[in-house]
Amino acid sequence: MEALDYHAEERRKAEFDLEEMKIVWAGSRQNYEISDRMARLVASDPVFRKDNRTMLSRKDLFKDTLRKAAHAWKRIIELRLSEEEAHMLRSYVDQPAFTDLHWGMFIPAIKGQGTEEQHEKWLPMAYKMQIIGCYAQTELGHGSNVQGLETTATFDPQTDEFVIHSPTLTSSKWWPGGLGKVSTHAVVYARLITGAQDHGVHGFIVQLRSLDDHSPLPGITVGDIGMKFGSGAYNSMDNGLLRFDHVRIPRNQMLMRVSQVTREGKFVQSDVPRQLVYGTMVYVRQTIVSDASCALARAVCIATRYSAVRRQFGSQNGGPETQVIDYKTQQSRLFPLLASAYAFRFVGEWLKWLYADVTQRLQANDFSTLPEAHACTAGLKSMTTSVTADAIEECRKLCGGHGYLCNSGLPELFAVYIPTCTYEGDNVVLLLQVARFLMKTVSQLGSGKKPVGTTAYMGRAEHLMQCRCEVERAEDWLKPSVILEAFEVRAFRMSIACAKNLSKFSNPEDGFSELSPDLLEAAIAHCQLIVVSKYIEKLQQDIPGKGVKRQLEILCNVYALHLLHKHLGDFVTTSCITPKQGALANEQLRLLYSQVRPNAITLVDAFNYTDHYLGSVLGCYNGNVYQRLYEEAWKDPLNDTVVPDGYLEYVRPILKQHIRTARL
Amino acid sequence: MEALDYHAEERRKAEFDLEEMKIVWAGSRQNYEISDRMARLVASDPVFRKDNRTMLSRKDLFKDTLRKAAHAWKRIIELRLSEEEAHMLRSYVDQPAFTDLHWGMFIPAIKGQGTEEQHEKWLPMAYKMQIIGCYAQTELGHGSNVQGLETTATFDPQTDEFVIHSPTLTSSKWWPGGLGKVSTHAVVYARLITGAQDHGVHGFIVQLRSLDDHSPLPGITVGDIGMKFGSGAYNSMDNGLLRFDHVRIPRNQMLMRVSQVTREGKFVQSDVPRQLVYGTMVYVRQTIVSDASCALARAVCIATRYSAVRRQFGSQNGGPETQVIDYKTQQSRLFPLLASAYAFRFVGEWLKWLYADVTQRLQANDFSTLPEAHACTAGLKSMTTSVTADAIEECRKLCGGHGYLCNSGLPELFAVYIPTCTYEGDNVVLLLQVARFLMKTVSQLGSGKKPVGTTAYMGRAEHLMQCRCEVERAEDWLKPSVILEAFEVRAFRMSIACAKNLSKFSNPEDGFSELSPDLLEAAIAHCQLIVVSKYIEKLQQDIPGKGVKRQLEILCNVYALHLLHKHLGDFVTTSCITPKQGALANEQLRLLYSQVRPNAITLVDAFNYTDHYLGSVLGCYNGNVYQRLYEEAWKDPLNDTVVPDGYLEYVRPILKQHIRTARL
Repeated sequence: MEALDYHAEERRKAEFDLEEMKIVWAGSRQNYEISDRMARLVASDPVFRKDNRTMLSRKDLFKDTLRKAAHAWKRIIELRLSEEEAHMLRSYVDQPAFTDLHWGMFIPAIKGQGTEEQHEKWLPMAYKMQIIGCYAQTELGHGSNVQGLETTATFDPQTDEFVIHSPTLTSSKWWPGGLGKVSTHAVVYARLITGAQDHGVHGFIVQLRSLDDHSPLPGITVGDIGMKFGSGAYNSMDNGLLRFDHVRIPRNQMLMRVSQVTREGKFVQSDVPRQLVYGTMVYVRQTIVSDASCALARAVCIATRYSAVRRQFGSQNGGPETQVIDYKTQQSRLFPLLASAYAFRFVGEWLKWLYADVTQRLQANDFSTLPEAHACTAGLKSMTTSVTADAIEECRKLCGGHGYLCNSGLPELFAVYIPTCTYEGDNVVLLLQVARFLMKTVSQLGSGKKPVGTTAYMGRAEHLMQCRCEVERAEDWLKPSVILEAFEVRAFRMSIACAKNLSKFSNPEDGFSELSPDLLEAAIAHCQLIVVSKYIEKLQQDIPGKGVKRQLEILCNVYALHLLHKHLGDFVTTSCITPKQGALANEQLRLLYSQVRPNAITLVDAFNYTDHYLGSVLGCYNGNVYQRLYEEAWKDPLNDTVVPDGYLEYVRPILKQHIRTARL
Repeated sequence: MEALDYHAEERRKAEFDLEEMKIVWAGSRQNYEISDRMARLVASDPVFRKDNRTMLSRKDLFKDTLRKAAHAWKRIIELRLSEEEAHMLRSYVDQPAFTDLHWGMFIPAIKGQGTEEQHEKWLPMAYKMQIIGCYAQTELGHGSNVQGLETTATFDPQTDEFVIHSPTLTSSKWWPGGLGKVSTHAVVYARLITGAQDHGVHGFIVQLRSLDDHSPLPGITVGDIGMKFGSGAYNSMDNGLLRFDHVRIPRNQMLMRVSQVTREGKFVQSDVPRQLVYGTMVYVRQTIVSDASCALARAVCIATRYSAVRRQFGSQNGGPETQVIDYKTQQSRLFPLLASAYAFRFVGEWLKWLYADVTQRLQANDFSTLPEAHACTAGLKSMTTSVTADAIEECRKLCGGHGYLCNSGLPELFAVYIPTCTYEGDNVVLLLQVARFLMKTVSQLGSGKKPVGTTAYMGRAEHLMQCRCEVERAEDWLKPSVILEAFEVRAFRMSIACAKNLSKFSNPEDGFSELSPDLLEAAIAHCQLIVVSKYIEKLQQDIPGKGVKRQLEILCNVYALHLLHKHLGDFVTTSCITPKQGALANEQLRLLYSQVRPNAITLVDAFNYTDHYLGSVLGCYNGNVYQRLYEEAWKDPLNDTVVPDGYLEYVRPILKQHIRTARL
């Protein structure tokens, strides 16, 4: 059984060096090795078992999560893991937990917004987890609009304290992960009031629970907000609600790096540039893009492997039916998603570079690239997470009926992934920010101000308005320069068209609001261009390994041409291409699918996911799907007994016609 | 509190007669009254409470379902409900149960495929629920391709019995609802073998469990297949697996209306036309289209009501923020879905007529319209369910973060709805059937054979290839004739383009397979045309009630023009419209949104859903959303205690730095 591999034949078809592709996917040999080690560490540890997760009640699931979090922490200490390794270990545990927020939001908030004094006081405790923190920003009635938060922090000069208070029901903190049951502390965002003046929203460190017995401190009402999408998914997390009834904290628990309140109650702005906040946003959103490629790759891996196992129709002379992966309908839905996974991976890699670049500039007080970098990461966060959410569901559908079983791994992956489209900036709100930036860039084109970074193409306005696509045969669509220009022309002309329509409004804000659906489309076109161009840049690098570059080129073309087909209306109505050229692109796309086909299984092997992490019977490495589905079924609690609980009370009276007299 | 209505002001804005609209939605005054009565009956009965559903463990949820099913049956008997009323009552209970399959598949299968003798024997028991049945067709390795089923029914002339057997693991029956834990009987589909001859797949009535103690009969292995998508959703259903080890049944338990096996083992076809099967398919799929409009309406109702409650950004001078329903981005996503709900409702109504028409013709041995009717229902099943599944998730996103909470009603609605895209014909497979029919129709155009029914427009081939859209101003897009022609031209030209490309292949099957992605698009264009044209036909009827017709016209235009915008590439590349005309359609669409806006809340009130059925805090009738969210949160089991279970073992050791020595 050990040697069993239903995919062996598929794997022999591969035309490239798998080991080199794994390194390309991981970003570097070192990343690959750490990731591989951490994944195996988690997969081999029985405490991290997760195949029973969806069958647990809420309480049992939550307790199981606490156990895993404690065990992970124990292993991290025992093995003296680095911060990066620890982060990876937690992500392979693959169960949302309070620790995500403690490490991912609470500590970074203190680091980013606290003074050095505050760092010295709070960070050592947080690093040792002597306190556990969360990030309490969102309120019941206030999500996207942070400036509309209602919680107040009123300075009391008599006691040198802030009074934290929830003045209304809608001001209840709502959603923060880790808040409901575990966190002892929180960074709370509240309106700072000194005297009678409202200074807007600031962060405060507030202790919520006793460090002795974990009971909420006086004035604090805290609890869990209830069940969320899916059976496992984020139900392992205690997303919480929190109300303050005049809770007092010392003045030095306001995070004071950017603004301070003095002993006398005077509000002072420091000389630390406020733009630093944007730097942090660039960082967080860059990790989200990178996570999008992981989630998408996971879904694609499952759907691809099962599409090679599953057979349906097409049996000839009693032979086996056709593998569904051989159907063009399957390929035309699956392979663009495979290509998107790689495309998002590379743009995520580039965003890491961008963040480093922005950080360096900020340190040198150079803020010139920040607006562009901010718009670009906002847009990519929005676009990649929306695509990934839809793609996970598409992959589920590509698995036919069995994709609906939890042990396919896809329902839970979907349920756990979709909040990404809402948190850290609602995807629609973010795209509107991008659109605003594009309109501003367009409006400045005449002024001699040169557009930078990912908007640099707009500097070639004249060329982009006049140039014509020169594709005459299907294979012309394989040229990177042709693809790139088509995407640039489309994005630019869509922005220009929006700007033109906007100029017809006397009040620009009315225009922006009225035309916002069109502006969203222009923003998406711009974001897709970024992904395409960064992929093409990646291909200009030296990529070792037999056949690796060739495969990546094929996927790049699939990515670009499937977008072109999907948004054909954009490309044709902007006269960027002719209908005939669109048809040629579609023809080329079909040829590309045939080139992906023999490499498909190995291209998903390159993600190097363990069976534990995938958590999917359909996507298991050796492809022994039906045997495993059958075995897994018997583990359901309903199969504990042959006759189900409830039979005597509720089924037998029906069958025996005693229903009228039954006591139900 | 009773009189509280946060939506009162919205309701006053309505420009039409709500009561008349409710009747339009229900199809008739009588439908409206029955539906209203059944909905209230369920809503007022504490046994049918469902707000705690997502917090139950699998076993508790299942037992709860058995209880509800028994209680529903008791009420149906006590109140002497008609079959239609009983069906409605069950649907308002809104929790998938074995009874769905008993009434919806087991009984119809016996009625449709059994002889009169078999009807007399089995139907009375089934109607009284002295036996409970399911429909065992799908197998572990065989879904879409029914002809590929592996289970065998071998006739043994010695004993006059069939031997039902599962020869392989993949032949295990898999998925049938009600099979796992409840059904005592099943209609089992198996390959009929007499002598050494395989006569293909036929239905057999097989008893699975003892009517005394419910234990499985000898040779029967039966169980539940495990957890499915969502926390409640279909987990209330015992979708089952079933294996036969040479199980013997009497010969007269083969369903023999269409084919028989004689005492001597001779296989005989009766003179009952096999096309009857298609009649049943038309019936089942027509109900699915009607259900799609219900599910879509439910999601739209929730999203619309909450969009009027939720406010975000845009506060001026400290006033309230803007209702999100006033944002054009929200309107451009929400209102097309509202329009789709009405459009699907009307096409579903028309399908009811179509089924009646087909039935009448079948009885008169007229099979001429059957292929067209079959293609048309297959296509509409596919198109409406795919759109509805996506739309539910879109409505969830339109509710922002809170849509992710189970008590928004949307996660469970999504999870329970999506299997519809797979069962009763996978949506992609169905569209390919439509495409095949379209290609056949096109190929016969020259032969003088006149296309019928929904393909009648293809008879005007010459006109459709030559005509030009005459839109010059945005308001021209309001004319039904203009819209209809644009959709006809687009659908026709896409079919013709596919046919042309197909003709380039020497082997038509290779061509069909290679071009299948394009064929899918042509099939969708055809299906959208049907919905648009049936909506326009509906508007030609007499519709009473102040302003009702006007509202329906607006929604019809929204439906058509949003499709035109979404598929602009199709319309423009087929030269059906110019880019300029596309822009005018988009302009008109924005104006239409403004006309929908004041009526939006009342248009969803017209669905007449009870708060019980909606199951959504966000969508509750009076709009008191935040208060209810807050109250509901405390009902989560995690809030039973202030300090969570697991704190002492797993959290305290971390905080107290005893983690190294902790026993986890």
